[in-house]
Amino acid sequence: MKVGIIGATGYGGLELLRFLHNHKEVEDIALFTSSEEGTIFSAKFPHLTDLYNQPLQKIDYDALAKFDVVFASTPSGVSSNLFPRLVGTGPKLIDLSGDFRLKDVASYEAWYKKAAAPGEVIQQSVYGLTEWNEQAIGQAELIANPGCYPTAVLLSLLPLIKSNLIDPSFLVIDAKSGISGAGNKPSQLTHFSEANENFSIYKINEHQHIPEIEQAISMFAHVDTKITFNTHLVPMTRGILTTSYAQVRTGVTQQQLVNCLKETYANHPFVRVIEEASSIGTNRVKGSNYCDISVKLDERTNRATIIGVIDNLVKGAAGQAIQNMNVQFGLPQKTGLDLIPYFI
Amino acid sequence: MKVGIIGATGYGGLELLRFLHNHKEVEDIALFTSSEEGTIFSAKFPHLTDLYNQPLQKIDYDALAKFDVVFASTPSGVSSNLFPRLVGTGPKLIDLSGDFRLKDVASYEAWYKKAAAPGEVIQQSVYGLTEWNEQAIGQAELIANPGCYPTAVLLSLLPLIKSNLIDPSFLVIDAKSGISGAGNKPSQLTHFSEANENFSIYKINEHQHIPEIEQAISMFAHVDTKITFNTHLVPMTRGILTTSYAQVRTGVTQQQLVNCLKETYANHPFVRVIEEASSIGTNRVKGSNYCDISVKLDERTNRATIIGVIDNLVKGAAGQAIQNMNVQFGLPQKTGLDLIPYFI
Amino acid sequence: MKVGIIGATGYGGLELLRFLHNHKEVEDIALFTSSEEGTIFSAKFPHLTDLYNQPLQKIDYDALAKFDVVFASTPSGVSSNLFPRLVGTGPKLIDLSGDFRLKDVASYEAWYKKAAAPGEVIQQSVYGLTEWNEQAIGQAELIANPGCYPTAVLLSLLPLIKSNLIDPSFLVIDAKSGISGAGNKPSQLTHFSEANENFSIYKINEHQHIPEIEQAISMFAHVDTKITFNTHLVPMTRGILTTSYAQVRTGVTQQQLVNCLKETYANHPFVRVIEEASSIGTNRVKGSNYCDISVKLDERTNRATIIGVIDNLVKGAAGQAIQNMNVQFGLPQKTGLDLIPYFI
Amino acid sequence: MKVGIIGATGYGGLELLRFLHNHKEVEDIALFTSSEEGTIFSAKFPHLTDLYNQPLQKIDYDALAKFDVVFASTPSGVSSNLFPRLVGTGPKLIDLSGDFRLKDVASYEAWYKKAAAPGEVIQQSVYGLTEWNEQAIGQAELIANPGCYPTAVLLSLLPLIKSNLIDPSFLVIDAKSGISGAGNKPSQLTHFSEANENFSIYKINEHQHIPEIEQAISMFAHVDTKITFNTHLVPMTRGILTTSYAQVRTGVTQQQLVNCLKETYANHPFVRVIEEASSIGTNRVKGSNYCDISVKLDERTNRATIIGVIDNLVKGAAGQAIQNMNVQFGLPQKTGLDLIPYFI
Repeated sequence: MKVGIIGATGYGGLELLRFLHNHKEVEDIALFTSSEEGTIFSAKFPHLTDLYNQPLQKIDYDALAKFDVVFASTPSGVSSNLFPRLVGTGPKLIDLSGDFRLKDVASYEAWYKKAAAPGEVIQQSVYGLTEWNEQAIGQAELIANPGCYPTAVLLSLLPLIKSNLIDPSFLVIDAKSGISGAGNKPSQLTHFSEANENFSIYKINEHQHIPEIEQAISMFAHVDTKITFNTHLVPMTRGILTTSYAQVRTGVTQQQLVNCLKETYANHPFVRVIEEASSIGTNRVKGSNYCDISVKLDERTNRATIIGVIDNLVKGAAGQAIQNMNVQFGLPQKTGLDLIPYFI
Repeated sequence: MKVGIIGATGYGGLELLRFLHNHKEVEDIALFTSSEEGTIFSAKFPHLTDLYNQPLQKIDYDALAKFDVVFASTPSGVSSNLFPRLVGTGPKLIDLSGDFRLKDVASYEAWYKKAAAPGEVIQQSVYGLTEWNEQAIGQAELIANPGCYPTAVLLSLLPLIKSNLIDPSFLVIDAKSGISGAGNKPSQLTHFSEANENFSIYKINEHQHIPEIEQAISMFAHVDTKITFNTHLVPMTRGILTTSYAQVRTGVTQQQLVNCLKETYANHPFVRVIEEASSIGTNRVKGSNYCDISVKLDERTNRATIIGVIDNLVKGAAGQAIQNMNVQFGLPQKTGLDLIPYFI
Repeated sequence: MKVGIIGATGYGGLELLRFLHNHKEVEDIALFTSSEEGTIFSAKFPHLTDLYNQPLQKIDYDALAKFDVVFASTPSGVSSNLFPRLVGTGPKLIDLSGDFRLKDVASYEAWYKKAAAPGEVIQQSVYGLTEWNEQAIGQAELIANPGCYPTAVLLSLLPLIKSNLIDPSFLVIDAKSGISGAGNKPSQLTHFSEANENFSIYKINEHQHIPEIEQAISMFAHVDTKITFNTHLVPMTRGILTTSYAQVRTGVTQQQLVNCLKETYANHPFVRVIEEASSIGTNRVKGSNYCDISVKLDERTNRATIIGVIDNLVKGAAGQAIQNMNVQFGLPQKTGLDLIPYFI
Repeated sequence: MKVGIIGATGYGGLELLRFLHNHKEVEDIALFTSSEEGTIFSAKFPHLTDLYNQPLQKIDYDALAKFDVVFASTPSGVSSNLFPRLVGTGPKLIDLSGDFRLKDVASYEAWYKKAAAPGEVIQQSVYGLTEWNEQAIGQAELIANPGCYPTAVLLSLLPLIKSNLIDPSFLVIDAKSGISGAGNKPSQLTHFSEANENFSIYKINEHQHIPEIEQAISMFAHVDTKITFNTHLVPMTRGILTTSYAQVRTGVTQQQLVNCLKETYANHPFVRVIEEASSIGTNRVKGSNYCDISVKLDERTNRATIIGVIDNLVKGAAGQAIQNMNVQFGLPQKTGLDLIPYFI
């Protein structure tokens, strides 16, 4: 397979490369950029010395049409312009940004404060939450890869909502992310001396992943609800942990909650259900494509605490994108992704 | 004033010393220990070289009776034995542990899994949430200094509950703390290589601060409720941020919520109400006795996000303890505590 | 005393404020800026909410002339223009940048790659290494406050060189700094995700503190030597540790080395000689004006390892500047600086 | 290949597993322990859930004799007892501890303060610095895998010493390591709140890697010298950077120094020579088996700064061990080790 990456200089692009490098079906990886044509990749990223010494290429639609798959790992507002020109030209397209996730154009423009992609292209795109949309992904030409937060939230919540074990009318989702989620562009917020030793809440009630989560709950669990969702920055590089809260339907037991999760993901290699844990942390999935989920019923209040843990750059971005590519090409999902988490 | 610190080798004890060192009414600070008698304090803690070269003293009740104030900054289950022997002997007593906080002995024993202090001593102790209990603190002999999490939670939530602006029946409180909250005793959980670059949830629905928060809501806002409360470890040393969620009473506006906070704390120097912020982090209070609070109404859901930020070792422990000492002795609350946060 | 700070928005400026706030002789602090006139200081730095809500002022030489002391905490190349206009107008002037440190204008221009300050103003400035230049500082109008690295290096090395206990002809100085030394301006180098979990060497053999250290060795120890000096970035915010290496003169013992340090600093409150330590870290001085130094003779090689530890923003910048101000005004050196290190 | 790991619960053992898991010639990995027999591996290390759910096995010499290769990743003083019983029974033996590195038994006992392994077993062991000892490694039964610091130091210094481009008589080596080098056992030194935001020097002039480096310089460059070597702890988990200093032979140029390094490692896939860099950090090799090295001549002093960077757990331990295993079994060195560094 010949693979092209647009936006290779972002953290999502670098992670795509890290996994595709060891993907046995991938023969050729081409690196495209809109702004740094000619830059020697390993000069910009010294960890790639001797490995990727080629220059970054200018985006060339004719060239891209000859690839088997093209990933776009670009800021929002970029692939909405690029990908419509590639649709129908040949390659499978996988977009890691939010540009094709929201089916409602008005919602995209309200939350992203940008012009949306053409509606008809959005409609033909498939939401790439692999475990919940495998069949459609297998047939898709254009995949909208899920956001990092939605991946952890949805994988942990969807089974319980769909099975009607929890009350979806008052869902509180408190999400925390490592700082790599903010991308590679320096800013005061991500300046080491101010981000280090600082835990902060940001975009209070205004994160653009809110409509994405609500749309997916509607799509996969057939429930319309308005969630409460907040996001926090953790002084670490990688990792997302989401803590969600919901009232449990009367009479539902801890075991039923756990069983629901286990049954849902029995045949899915990247979702691990944690049955019993006094402590669950992001280091258990670091660098890997796993999503670890857990649920704990508080009998005192009859509310459940539902936990999702991912590496935001892997299952929350590049890893899931490759998982989707595997599904599109009929490969086992673990191809190129069977890496043990770093842990430390 | 002559001040004694029992448990000077813990982080709470060290912070007491850091502030008392510059407290203009404090003339003498004596350091007591139950287990390290004779250890030169600065040999154990090299940052105190030349400053506190004295040996740690064995606990001596006769000696302690001659102090003006005695702080206990010891693990739970210690001051419940020590302080009853000092009650009535002269000094003001301020306990930084949980041993005198819960009025209900059975609740203490259920949550702490330890024998409680004598009931009659517990009853005469006063809960030291300074801004809400100033008058009783001023007359108290024995103060139960609040827990770190409860301080941030209560200061941010109590005004809104008491004013009936939010519905207290479904309060979700998601709390995050730096690792110094786990104390100075090494363990696998706090081993650098496993705590670093790892964000984790712990004691899921089982934290002993739950009954403390519920008791204080009942005491100060006259509402009985069962909260949902979870705690997380952030890979940083200092700081707590609590994110609380509640349904807002119909028709209540953002401005009413903010005004409620501002009016409540108009004359309280250590609580700052943040009116407008896109991002609120723990570095704004680091090293200081401030508690910064904020509220944001999400009109989409009619739910409020309520934020509290403290330094867990200062307003969440040693700082509030000294603030209470100041109240007990009729000193201005800022005496010895008027330090600018480090920020970086 | 009325104090003005030019460059209050930098980390050096913020630290000046943190200490001056509790300096009992300081009545008024005015904050000046060249680029952010009118900005409410606490809006930019939320940790100062309620404390410094005033707007930043435009630099006004007539106004500054009425202050008792003016600090410039600006990038190199700024105070070289500002301070010559203030010389002789009244206030004591303390420059935290490198603009007045090097007596040799050509050397400044070679290492800093900028135009130097007027030579005659440079000549009348006094190098503010307090412990070694107290008398001149006491009479100085314009003080060139030492660089962060030179402070740790010189305080630890000068006594041994001056006493001829070590051979100054082959001095290797390996220096490590927290990232706050890079200032508050975001860059790729200080972007959290790339600075975190990364230890790096930078400006290899090219740091502008090299000529400053050599000049001071010549000035205070009367030895001309060319040092080898390299600098590294540590993924933490504050702190400098310098490890220096030199051959020891034949026959010199460990005790002589230690005694030399102890005698030199016997009456200097901010330099602490560590006699015996298995481990020496930056946390022992964090947030304080202390410089801890130590020396260890390796009898196997007859070489000494000499260690200096400071908080780069305090003894390496703002703290030493205030120490110098105290000397200029005949105040005890510890005034406003008698704070216990944070340790954690 | 059937592989056994003794000491699988240490960080070295976990890293062996991380790489062996994807090693295409390895069919079976068995995990042995001296103290935790029966513990389910994934219960102890939750990142291995679903991957390694087997119980830890008791050490059984008969069983081990049937393996193709046995790694010992144990504290010093353990394999000196275990491995002599396995010598000659069949498997290739690779020891990651220091027990077989020093040929001089007295030296081992002086520096390690422990009883040494039997002298005759030490003599038949081969020092596993792959790039310098490949032929002997290929024929070895028992390999003493190099220490983490020596690997970075030797790979960067040996070519320059052997070629007589630098003067080996006064080598200063200043080494810095992430905290994972201290292993997985909690202690005050590695307690998060005290290790975080703290850069420290430890074991001043007393590190047990000193004789290992000197022995290897003698062995491979045929020079006897006494080095000056110090070690520091960096508040990060992974990574070593060593900064070495030496006088350069008269007339030697920067280009000669670089060429020497490049020629030495022209055919070695894991050593990358960095020709031009303003900044070199540990993140460029993180998680990978690369050792990046660089040299810079300071013409002002005619001294060279020589830099080595590795991941202490990979090229400094588990990665190099597997590289050695590959050599022993005639496999390409990169087998199982061709992973892109994480970078972030």
